Amino acid sequence: MAKEVIRVGILGLGTVGSGTVQTLQENKKDIEQKIGARLEIKKIAVAHPDKKRPVPLEPGWITGDVNEVMDDPEIDIVAELIGGVEPARSYIDRALDSGKHIVTANKELLAKGGHELLTKAATHRLDFYFEGSVAGGIPIVQAMKIGLAANHIERVVGIVNGTTNYILTQMAQEGKDFAEALAEAQAKGYAEADPTNDVEGYDAAYKIAILASIAFMSRVDPEDIHAEGIARITAGDIRYARELGYAIKLLAIGRQENGSIQARVHPALLPFAHPLASVNDVFNAVFVRGSSVGEVMFFGRGAGALPTGSAVAADILEVARNIRFGSAGRIACTCFENKSVIPMDTIETKYYIRMKVSDKPKVLATIAGVFGEFGVSVESVVQKAVPTGESAEIVWVTHQALEKNVREALEVIARLPVVAEVSNWIRVEE
Amino acid sequence: MAKEVIRVGILGLGTVGSGTVQTLQENKKDIEQKIGARLEIKKIAVAHPDKKRPVPLEPGWITGDVNEVMDDPEIDIVAELIGGVEPARSYIDRALDSGKHIVTANKELLAKGGHELLTKAATHRLDFYFEGSVAGGIPIVQAMKIGLAANHIERVVGIVNGTTNYILTQMAQEGKDFAEALAEAQAKGYAEADPTNDVEGYDAAYKIAILASIAFMSRVDPEDIHAEGIARITAGDIRYARELGYAIKLLAIGRQENGSIQARVHPALLPFAHPLASVNDVFNAVFVRGSSVGEVMFFGRGAGALPTGSAVAADILEVARNIRFGSAGRIACTCFENKSVIPMDTIETKYYIRMKVSDKPKVLATIAGVFGEFGVSVESVVQKAVPTGESAEIVWVTHQALEKNVREALEVIARLPVVAEVSNWIRVEE
Repeated sequence: MAKEVIRVGILGLGTVGSGTVQTLQENKKDIEQKIGARLEIKKIAVAHPDKKRPVPLEPGWITGDVNEVMDDPEIDIVAELIGGVEPARSYIDRALDSGKHIVTANKELLAKGGHELLTKAATHRLDFYFEGSVAGGIPIVQAMKIGLAANHIERVVGIVNGTTNYILTQMAQEGKDFAEALAEAQAKGYAEADPTNDVEGYDAAYKIAILASIAFMSRVDPEDIHAEGIARITAGDIRYARELGYAIKLLAIGRQENGSIQARVHPALLPFAHPLASVNDVFNAVFVRGSSVGEVMFFGRGAGALPTGSAVAADILEVARNIRFGSAGRIACTCFENKSVIPMDTIETKYYIRMKVSDKPKVLATIAGVFGEFGVSVESVVQKAVPTGESAEIVWVTHQALEKNVREALEVIARLPVVAEVSNWIRVEE
Repeated sequence: MAKEVIRVGILGLGTVGSGTVQTLQENKKDIEQKIGARLEIKKIAVAHPDKKRPVPLEPGWITGDVNEVMDDPEIDIVAELIGGVEPARSYIDRALDSGKHIVTANKELLAKGGHELLTKAATHRLDFYFEGSVAGGIPIVQAMKIGLAANHIERVVGIVNGTTNYILTQMAQEGKDFAEALAEAQAKGYAEADPTNDVEGYDAAYKIAILASIAFMSRVDPEDIHAEGIARITAGDIRYARELGYAIKLLAIGRQENGSIQARVHPALLPFAHPLASVNDVFNAVFVRGSSVGEVMFFGRGAGALPTGSAVAADILEVARNIRFGSAGRIACTCFENKSVIPMDTIETKYYIRMKVSDKPKVLATIAGVFGEFGVSVESVVQKAVPTGESAEIVWVTHQALEKNVREALEVIARLPVVAEVSNWIRVEE
């Protein structure tokens, strides 16, 4: 007989935990109708049981002892909402051993150790769901596992870090420089005191590791992902890009070509007509190109208590449906293939390159000559006189070129006597 | 023991049927890995068996006799891709009686008779999936049934008709009038010879009936939906709207407030900052506001062989997973409630109103006085002299007002001696 009551244990009651509890409680009646059974929070294990919480809690929920979740045979689903690799990994491992289904929003753990945990869950025929780990409330994991599952996915490209998108939006709309926009993001609570994880692209790298693994049906290790942040983007770059018809966004890019994978995170110029180009502020969006569906995009809030809580609660609902129908494990790990991630030097794309040069005759021709020697052909070039002194600023946009060739050409160009500095180079996506 | 081979019968091999077959065949290996079983097309019943088809077909697939699908005990899933109410409804009914799971892309049937068919499927514990019936390849049905299922949905607003969106985009970008843009859409194959269904909003009404029923967990009958098309939108309206900061889109709107439902299809002014405002050409998008997730949007191709085939094939994959796991019926009809759709006269929104008047003193004051008598307060008014003659054009934007009051005020205003005509009035959404 199908279970009448499904019980959830929660590990962690921070931002995501609170949003999950609030979502489950506010919409309890609807959720239970959809499951066809009662859904009860049984225990919530926290580090500080006496701390005041922003959500209403029922008596007996809170415990300081994680074993009260792990060892409770009545608990069917464990929602791990602690974050970070340890102790989250050990708790999940133990919960799987006790036959509990897992829901998590832990991107770092998923990216680094998801494959092993998913495999273990499959072996035990237990569910392991993780919608909340990428792009907050946007149901993108599910979209790729179900709605787009009949497609060969060619690309998955996301704006998946709200902090950096907020900073870049402020730089673009208000002309602020990076440091100023970062300070404002910190003041508003959009960036942490130590912003490294967001600003340097590591957070986005975890997320594209997860998305690319699902999209390309092959495990993408975050260590193989080139991650580059936005700290070297200037308000001037954004202005030049706009004149050329592009926005600058921090993109998390997965591509599949000829059986190998590109997985990289870096700022990129994106044509204004691209659907991702108008995704601003803290919003996230994921753009997918599939063999049948063509181009689709999913847009929404990528972080925050309730949006992420929406994703975690939806996973709990799905797992509960599986428990009701005895169909746990029906959507498991889909990394059936073993494709390699190609090194950055071998990618081909277009490049925006900004440099300071002497304002003398033949400078352009000299530099263009070096590009030519390395097989880099130029699509457009704009020279701007700098008001003070004899120097000028040149902005190049190349045609498609091999990254290695561009890098080597720029090393030679930087040493030319007429070149004061190669100020920045940014990839152009289309 | 779980089934090793799952067999599909298809009814209809038009646009959607061809796209479905192509998708299933091209990605057969990946799809079968995801299901964990073989997936075979067994029979495709068509009206004209000898007609040449745009997809490669295996010998023995095609039959002119629908009974070869209906009576084949080996067929597990019937994909109904004929469209229209009859004979599609009868075929589905019969297939359910024979214990076959259903996948369909039939919006008209779903909107008009979905509730009965879904109830019957649930009684027989059979799957009934219909992702392809709304917004082509965009997995919006699934998003609301799974990914956003833990939310109380407050709004679902879509651009769900590609034909009218193409026409409005042409009018906005090229300054064409409606007739010219329609003719071009017909020439390009985006509009049918008889464009009534698209242009008058009926197609969009079927789709919002489906979306609103899922979102609000209560059956929305298409007969209760106010459907208004785009034929009376002029290039001038679009120009004025742009000056005021708005795009004009054909919106399919579902809202839930205080336990009752609004469901309506009509052109509307939408602020340029709204994510739907930049959805152009034949693209579709569905915007959802949920209690926890906040604002999310799903964007992609709403029609065409392969995008809709992507949705139908994904449904087949999901049903096959359920067959493998014995979990058919795990996501069934969720219309647990019985909420009423409120009449148009009782909605409150803002209005854009364009009228031709005599260019005489006190005209504005006279008209504003009538609005005031009906409790309609004015947010802004712009008067433009018309080059020829003594008339002027006035564009009003009201504050939130009751539709009944606006309608009645305009009836009075149209009879004023100084008013030549009330040229158009269009609702403003925010």
